[in-house]
Amino acid sequence: MKHIDIEITAESGLELLTNDEIARLSEDSKDGDHQLFKKCILAVLNSTHITDEISYHNEQLKHFDVEVLQLNKGVKLKIKNAPSTALVDGIMIQGLKEQVFSVLRDIVFLKQELESNARIDFNSSNGCTNAIFHILRNAKALRPGYDPNMVVCWGGHAIPEFEYQYSKEVGYRLGLRGFDIITGCGIGAMKGPMKGALIGHSKQRINNGRYIGITEPGIIAAESPNPIVNELIIMPDIEKRLEAFVRLGHCFVVFPGGVGTAEEILYILGILLHPDNKDTPFPLIFTGPKASAPYFERIDRFIGDTLGAEAQSKYQIIIDDPVGVAKAVQKGVADVREYRKKVHDAYHFNWQLKILWGFQEEFIPTHENMRQLNLSKDQPTHLLAANLRKAFSGIVSGNVKEKGIREVAKHGPYEIQGDSHIMEQMDALLEAFVIQKRMKLNAKDYVPCYKVVNTTKDRKPEVVK
Amino acid sequence: MKHIDIEITAESGLELLTNDEIARLSEDSKDGDHQLFKKCILAVLNSTHITDEISYHNEQLKHFDVEVLQLNKGVKLKIKNAPSTALVDGIMIQGLKEQVFSVLRDIVFLKQELESNARIDFNSSNGCTNAIFHILRNAKALRPGYDPNMVVCWGGHAIPEFEYQYSKEVGYRLGLRGFDIITGCGIGAMKGPMKGALIGHSKQRINNGRYIGITEPGIIAAESPNPIVNELIIMPDIEKRLEAFVRLGHCFVVFPGGVGTAEEILYILGILLHPDNKDTPFPLIFTGPKASAPYFERIDRFIGDTLGAEAQSKYQIIIDDPVGVAKAVQKGVADVREYRKKVHDAYHFNWQLKILWGFQEEFIPTHENMRQLNLSKDQPTHLLAANLRKAFSGIVSGNVKEKGIREVAKHGPYEIQGDSHIMEQMDALLEAFVIQKRMKLNAKDYVPCYKVVNTTKDRKPEVVK
Amino acid sequence: MKHIDIEITAESGLELLTNDEIARLSEDSKDGDHQLFKKCILAVLNSTHITDEISYHNEQLKHFDVEVLQLNKGVKLKIKNAPSTALVDGIMIQGLKEQVFSVLRDIVFLKQELESNARIDFNSSNGCTNAIFHILRNAKALRPGYDPNMVVCWGGHAIPEFEYQYSKEVGYRLGLRGFDIITGCGIGAMKGPMKGALIGHSKQRINNGRYIGITEPGIIAAESPNPIVNELIIMPDIEKRLEAFVRLGHCFVVFPGGVGTAEEILYILGILLHPDNKDTPFPLIFTGPKASAPYFERIDRFIGDTLGAEAQSKYQIIIDDPVGVAKAVQKGVADVREYRKKVHDAYHFNWQLKILWGFQEEFIPTHENMRQLNLSKDQPTHLLAANLRKAFSGIVSGNVKEKGIREVAKHGPYEIQGDSHIMEQMDALLEAFVIQKRMKLNAKDYVPCYKVVNTTKDRKPEVVK
Amino acid sequence: MKHIDIEITAESGLELLTNDEIARLSEDSKDGDHQLFKKCILAVLNSTHITDEISYHNEQLKHFDVEVLQLNKGVKLKIKNAPSTALVDGIMIQGLKEQVFSVLRDIVFLKQELESNARIDFNSSNGCTNAIFHILRNAKALRPGYDPNMVVCWGGHAIPEFEYQYSKEVGYRLGLRGFDIITGCGIGAMKGPMKGALIGHSKQRINNGRYIGITEPGIIAAESPNPIVNELIIMPDIEKRLEAFVRLGHCFVVFPGGVGTAEEILYILGILLHPDNKDTPFPLIFTGPKASAPYFERIDRFIGDTLGAEAQSKYQIIIDDPVGVAKAVQKGVADVREYRKKVHDAYHFNWQLKILWGFQEEFIPTHENMRQLNLSKDQPTHLLAANLRKAFSGIVSGNVKEKGIREVAKHGPYEIQGDSHIMEQMDALLEAFVIQKRMKLNAKDYVPCYKVVNTTKDRKPEVVK
Repeated sequence: MKHIDIEITAESGLELLTNDEIARLSEDSKDGDHQLFKKCILAVLNSTHITDEISYHNEQLKHFDVEVLQLNKGVKLKIKNAPSTALVDGIMIQGLKEQVFSVLRDIVFLKQELESNARIDFNSSNGCTNAIFHILRNAKALRPGYDPNMVVCWGGHAIPEFEYQYSKEVGYRLGLRGFDIITGCGIGAMKGPMKGALIGHSKQRINNGRYIGITEPGIIAAESPNPIVNELIIMPDIEKRLEAFVRLGHCFVVFPGGVGTAEEILYILGILLHPDNKDTPFPLIFTGPKASAPYFERIDRFIGDTLGAEAQSKYQIIIDDPVGVAKAVQKGVADVREYRKKVHDAYHFNWQLKILWGFQEEFIPTHENMRQLNLSKDQPTHLLAANLRKAFSGIVSGNVKEKGIREVAKHGPYEIQGDSHIMEQMDALLEAFVIQKRMKLNAKDYVPCYKVVNTTKDRKPEVVK
Repeated sequence: MKHIDIEITAESGLELLTNDEIARLSEDSKDGDHQLFKKCILAVLNSTHITDEISYHNEQLKHFDVEVLQLNKGVKLKIKNAPSTALVDGIMIQGLKEQVFSVLRDIVFLKQELESNARIDFNSSNGCTNAIFHILRNAKALRPGYDPNMVVCWGGHAIPEFEYQYSKEVGYRLGLRGFDIITGCGIGAMKGPMKGALIGHSKQRINNGRYIGITEPGIIAAESPNPIVNELIIMPDIEKRLEAFVRLGHCFVVFPGGVGTAEEILYILGILLHPDNKDTPFPLIFTGPKASAPYFERIDRFIGDTLGAEAQSKYQIIIDDPVGVAKAVQKGVADVREYRKKVHDAYHFNWQLKILWGFQEEFIPTHENMRQLNLSKDQPTHLLAANLRKAFSGIVSGNVKEKGIREVAKHGPYEIQGDSHIMEQMDALLEAFVIQKRMKLNAKDYVPCYKVVNTTKDRKPEVVK
Repeated sequence: MKHIDIEITAESGLELLTNDEIARLSEDSKDGDHQLFKKCILAVLNSTHITDEISYHNEQLKHFDVEVLQLNKGVKLKIKNAPSTALVDGIMIQGLKEQVFSVLRDIVFLKQELESNARIDFNSSNGCTNAIFHILRNAKALRPGYDPNMVVCWGGHAIPEFEYQYSKEVGYRLGLRGFDIITGCGIGAMKGPMKGALIGHSKQRINNGRYIGITEPGIIAAESPNPIVNELIIMPDIEKRLEAFVRLGHCFVVFPGGVGTAEEILYILGILLHPDNKDTPFPLIFTGPKASAPYFERIDRFIGDTLGAEAQSKYQIIIDDPVGVAKAVQKGVADVREYRKKVHDAYHFNWQLKILWGFQEEFIPTHENMRQLNLSKDQPTHLLAANLRKAFSGIVSGNVKEKGIREVAKHGPYEIQGDSHIMEQMDALLEAFVIQKRMKLNAKDYVPCYKVVNTTKDRKPEVVK
Repeated sequence: MKHIDIEITAESGLELLTNDEIARLSEDSKDGDHQLFKKCILAVLNSTHITDEISYHNEQLKHFDVEVLQLNKGVKLKIKNAPSTALVDGIMIQGLKEQVFSVLRDIVFLKQELESNARIDFNSSNGCTNAIFHILRNAKALRPGYDPNMVVCWGGHAIPEFEYQYSKEVGYRLGLRGFDIITGCGIGAMKGPMKGALIGHSKQRINNGRYIGITEPGIIAAESPNPIVNELIIMPDIEKRLEAFVRLGHCFVVFPGGVGTAEEILYILGILLHPDNKDTPFPLIFTGPKASAPYFERIDRFIGDTLGAEAQSKYQIIIDDPVGVAKAVQKGVADVREYRKKVHDAYHFNWQLKILWGFQEEFIPTHENMRQLNLSKDQPTHLLAANLRKAFSGIVSGNVKEKGIREVAKHGPYEIQGDSHIMEQMDALLEAFVIQKRMKLNAKDYVPCYKVVNTTKDRKPEVVK
């Protein structure tokens, strides 16, 4: 790929900066805002060059740079060695340009407003939810006065063509019915529903459709936002990102994916299984084309075997029926609307849902932390779900995240232990993913980043606050 | 006036609140946010009932209340005993409704974001300017991508009809030329230019004209925003408000007024006389109808006698020529544009202008502080201007501000002292204001809130940082 | 006044012309489109120079010219000797520019589309109404999907200041309630309500308020559209203009005026008295300040004496109560809405109302035609109203219209005859107008253009189709 | 397919009708407006059910009906037996709804305004061009004030998937560069470029992209407008449709197709070969994927052999290079802009291009007319091109048009004759189309609707006016 120097100027009012803010963005300390900023901008500009090989990204970073300047009419970015695919005839694609300034907005807000605000406490459950609200509000993602219509779509980035086409078809049917789409903003099942919805919206002459991509610095390099995304939001870490989905969405559709998708499923089941959330409607649909039915059967069995029938009652599986999915979404969103109206909760932010601190604090998948996970049945199901979620999170990290890859390269695969029954189920599930080639993009010879070791029954269960 | 209970709902995305923010706005501690909030809301709702008698406002406050509620589709305010003039057929006038939510926005931002943000230092000159930028940015008052076109209009609220008509005519000529208007947002010379510009904009089919009113909690009750104001901004205190004018405006037109106007003139001259600002273009025009010529002659003489010819070179006086004023504004704004372009400064915020801390810190006009003011010639002119400004500020406070009135009622008139020459000039100017009935609205028998006492020559000059 | 050459370019899609259309607009035959076009354009450009002296207009016309050119990006007009008041700093005021292109649109449509369309028959009652619909549709004045809210305001152009202020206050109250305004588009009572509504709309943040001015070539020179008018419509003649008001408006407010206003009142009463229109709601309000009460008493008495109590039941008189007028309008428009809904008639065009051909055909006030008018009681009241309307129409023509003035200058005053009782009433009314100085603007010594002659009782009544 | 009754209401101001116009649309005379109206509406509603079998359409027509009603807020259509694919959850897809009202607009305008307008002469060359301007203006397709950016895409509807994907890719590259698309509004190469441009526009955040489909009553049933089309225009016949393309477009891209595409190529070459058009820039690009190269080689050889090298100089062929096509379009459009600027021609309508009457009058492919075509070299090349165009037009008609199919069924295949050299070339070309399966959609066993017969050399050349 060729690389080109380019200057871009902000157009909207979001990107006005004080001289102070500019100075901090330019500080070149190793872990300063500048590194973070550069990394995210490069990820955005890479969006049309599809890969999840971090090394490639890191190689580019050596030559890539962004400088922020104050200008008469606003803020200007001088970008050095931008990937040429981000430009058309020397001009940056407008969608990417807007995403670049979203990165700027979120990093300034996070680093310079939130982190120095004494009223925001990232170390408490309420504080965390509050911070998420602040970030979404600052990004203009919360819009009062609208009826619920946000569909979160989860699923893998490394999926086969027929699954991609299916996710696009579901998006099309949702778009025809006026729904907006939220995804993790990469390719595969994160792009398909948006592209489909775009066509559906176009036929309905909806020209303010929302295609929201929510990401976080740790994943953005591996999952560049696709250019359909017209609202890019960067959350501080994976847990805040997951909570942002949950607080923002009105309905959740899960397409086939790999470990990341399994993580998302366990995360949400863990929340829904909490006794306080028993009566809160939360439509959750697993769907895929006919050929992908085994995937969900496998997941469903895993959930049944580890978390039980109550967990299974929290979702419905719809195979090979995009219109059916769209109608189920319609029904689910209507239920959510009715419920929020009854309890006087906001439509734009799901304040009701109880989320325990264990789902909010950042899980750092060190080898020690991975080994310490309590994967036994001696705990409430929602806590078991939380811990299983962390196990999968670690595996995602070992597969595609910078730090995780480094750790695994250094210390060898993570060791995971737990009840033998659970461990067997987990091993079987992960093996199936390997066989179905759901572990990594372009992975010819996948080397697992984990191993299941002996079960310890004598360890005390971790207490989740 | 009748009073009515009413509920209003926010429409835009600015007014989304966390449950926390709502809680704090509702706290009924004596100096809590709630008191401030109530007071400002009432001032907005009083805008069509013109008076500057604080006592009337205070009487209303006893029965008036505002409750903030979270609603499905946004934030709702329940207002108890709203003045009926704020409604048409039981529905609040849209312009007032928007102003009410501007108050909400600014108080939440000031109290809950800025004051708890470790990076904002209200006790330094830079910090102060930074905070003003943050408030204006949050209020969406800074708009990048536009050429300079903001005209600040200063002048009295208690002016005779012919001066009001003149200010309207000037506004009309500015509106025809596409200029937007910023004023202190009350009546008189603060309303006239906006109303005129509205007609001018209408003839030019400009339907996004900006009529910005900048106020502060201490003055809002006495100078209710007029309903033409479509952007209401509440600054923390009088000094921040003055700086906001200066940072935001591209040209400054001063109509006849009273002590408040004199204060504004001295404030800006103090800044312009600072050596660092020598080359920064800053168009400043004094104007009025023929019959008001003596007013500006009086002011001009006072400035000449106290601050000297350099100070006089900072402004031009145009009498009875609205088109001439509009053309001078055009010229002045063009110079500002050219200069900012040359030095790469932003169009939307005047970062260049040096403002000393003495112009930024809140001056509290206690009797002691008033007596201590250094009004001698033994200091640089820009500092003398600063101190004269404070003297006038104290008199404004004693005339129309709640605290000042209380102080004067308790301790008798303020005592002001200084060089006898300066004191004579000042006394003469203030007497002229009394004779011209420029001291207070509806004031039949104005009782001065100050007296000029003996000059002390042996006092050390105050050091301004 | 200075005169200046200027070029202006059309911005909207309405003004695309074929080379043919341009050619016809440029033909300089004496009664060709070009003369008509020039005359109307000049009237628009004179709007800020107030006079109703035709001679002044004619003098200007000798030097004034407009050339139409085809340009890359649209149509361009080259205007020679435009009055300088139409420009600000060398650029035409946008509102006037839009009005100029409305003239272009309507003249092209009338002359080149309607008059050559075999399906449009200007010589039948239905054809006439059809043509009016076509003109209004082409001018985008008909907007489906909106609730009724169009208030037609009639009244004099030559009214005293206090009546003008009153009409403005009524407009303000209507604007606050979201009503749009239609007038005859000149000054006085035609400008006041628009200006008031503009302020009202502004406070309600309504920035798409409609200020519709309906005029016709014969009157436009004497009553230049005021620049608030943001939709200018030119109807072929006075009768089509009156019908356009009636078909478009949902409520009718009449302010004090002179003979023209009396003409409008008689016109509408003649229609409302037709038996077919008995049950159609048609809110009609006469209003003025306290000092103008005698005017409406005089009119009311005239109507009572000539047309009787039924005619008097068709309107209400509200004195000195702008809010009361606004509430009566609200009530009236609500009735209209309910009725149209019931009978499935369009909101945007009053198809229901029966209008006889006698109210539609152009009345040419030759001396012969004026003398032949049947002003006796030997006919249905609605026909008597029609004939009285024609008599007043002739007097308006003799006062301010080009042709009429020429005729009267040549043949002496019109002679009007009829039942002695009616003639006495009419003479009394007209005399009152002279005394109240309601006959003409700036008229120091008004010379009547008519005289009442002996009554003939033996003449056959004219048959109105 | 299921069929459903539905009512739809117009939203924009275009669809206001007089009672007269409604009456005429409802007249059920056999060739009345109603039949035409019904047929076109049904075609629109069929857009998601792809077929070009007329018989299917005719079968539906028996049960299908549309009734036009006047409503309080506008015009309402009652549709009986609409194809269910036009609806989502019982509500008509907005894009189709807008197309339905475009049909209404154009048929009313054509039948009721143009045909009864004495100033529009469909029987002269200028009159024809004028009429086209009027139709396009009424459809708001002419937009002054914009730079040239309209790309006409021609090509077959019955093309293989890889050619469709290629046309989409070209559209994407055009969309990224901000170009709008005009096509014949069916599927295949008429849909691909629009869909691609939609994605390109979306990435550039262009949300007012234009996807113009131009059709005519004779072809609309066989080529339903695809739902991306957001401006549907119905021209009176095939010749007006071709001229509309030529007058509206700024650049022309031809994808592989069948006889229809050949017809379009010959039509445009005939015009460009006219001596008057020698210097008018008219960018014309033939393009396709690698596998389609033989198609254009075949066409190019046919043109070279029959019309010669000058004809070949009028176009460029670009194989398998979408970005190259986009850049060639950019270059071509820039030339057009420069030229129009130089000669002061409008950007929105190509007035310059000389089009002979022979290209404008409707060619009715009776067996007699087909046999009489002069296909000899004894005439200017541009006339030979015109006659070849007619020959292909007849074959299109015999393939997919209602009348043509009937004629051929009745009288057997058309007989075409001409110079033996030309006839051989033509036969070879048509045979190639049959082999490449380019004659008809889903055609398993294509039966040619024509035969080449003996050459007559002694016939007088037809004179083209």
